[in-house]
Amino acid sequence: MSGPVDFYFDFSSPYGYFASTTIDRIAAESGRDVVWHPILLGAVFKIVGTAPLVDYPLKGNYMRRDLVRAARLWKITFKEPPGFPHNTIAAARLYYWIHDEDTNKAKAFARAVYAGFFEQGRDVSSAEAATAFAVEQGFDRGAAIAALANQAVKDRLRGEVDAAIARGVFGSPFVIVDGEPFWGSDRLDQVKAWLETGGW
Amino acid sequence: MSGPVDFYFDFSSPYGYFASTTIDRIAAESGRDVVWHPILLGAVFKIVGTAPLVDYPLKGNYMRRDLVRAARLWKITFKEPPGFPHNTIAAARLYYWIHDEDTNKAKAFARAVYAGFFEQGRDVSSAEAATAFAVEQGFDRGAAIAALANQAVKDRLRGEVDAAIARGVFGSPFVIVDGEPFWGSDRLDQVKAWLETGGW
Repeated sequence: MSGPVDFYFDFSSPYGYFASTTIDRIAAESGRDVVWHPILLGAVFKIVGTAPLVDYPLKGNYMRRDLVRAARLWKITFKEPPGFPHNTIAAARLYYWIHDEDTNKAKAFARAVYAGFFEQGRDVSSAEAATAFAVEQGFDRGAAIAALANQAVKDRLRGEVDAAIARGVFGSPFVIVDGEPFWGSDRLDQVKAWLETGGW
Repeated sequence: MSGPVDFYFDFSSPYGYFASTTIDRIAAESGRDVVWHPILLGAVFKIVGTAPLVDYPLKGNYMRRDLVRAARLWKITFKEPPGFPHNTIAAARLYYWIHDEDTNKAKAFARAVYAGFFEQGRDVSSAEAATAFAVEQGFDRGAAIAALANQAVKDRLRGEVDAAIARGVFGSPFVIVDGEPFWGSDRLDQVKAWLETGGW
């Protein structure tokens, strides 16, 4: 029972971004690695029958307030991206394309995309915008653009999303520790406790 | 800025029940009282366009697991009521009927209903079942049954629900401190910090 922690997130999820800033440290404190799995919440929402939080009356306004307040409390740099939420399929495909070559570079790419989106207000949704992050990680622009159109890369992401749903993932962030599921950045304290104690 | 804390909840909400076991203590530590406001999530869901968590695929199963796990962690007695969720309109009406006569008895009634529902597995949804809790608090059975059919009592609850929605309440538990909204039992640590610091 000391395998890696699975961290599921959507690149457009601000709570996923919050979790991304601490999940590796929490796991490392218990001697665990973290496998990052970008997914597409749009595909999940179709199964679950939900929608982005911002689309709900009352809930959307609350979420905007909660995000800014939580970021201040946790001292996380956060700026709501313009036109939020965004399509993040290109970034997710590039993540797995990089991942299958170099897992460390994939995590660095994911961190850069999250920082670009939620700290710097950069566009991450178009193919060109997502590709720019891969180029900044040292990948060839042409190869990245070709990867986005590659059916095997598309299938790789689809397989990850299907596998996540099959494991019961329905939101972002979603963390699974030794088969135990935790949903939401507000469950990270329980993730930490579970890792430290082996469960209760 | 030292008025009471407003605590909104639905009698059928397990996370509301969790919050009910600690909200008065958290507020008292900062010298605050708590005003309890039972509401009807069904009415809120119509506005927000959501549904009970248990009705969503994946999310419902997760919630059941999360509830039992959180109760164990926080050492709260918890048993999922049979046939959950239940209609709690009678309990909510009786709460306000009692409240307008004696606020302390109303809170004792609410605690008893929550304990009956989530600790003892008692029925709380029928008029007779809800009335039994009022009788146990020393109220006359006939008067309680009459209150349930009283248009003024019905309007009292409707007014509370409308006022809650007007303040942005869309879930249970929902706590408002000096105009600052907090949704969910997992925000009680922030409620505590907000009360202690006056905000951040």
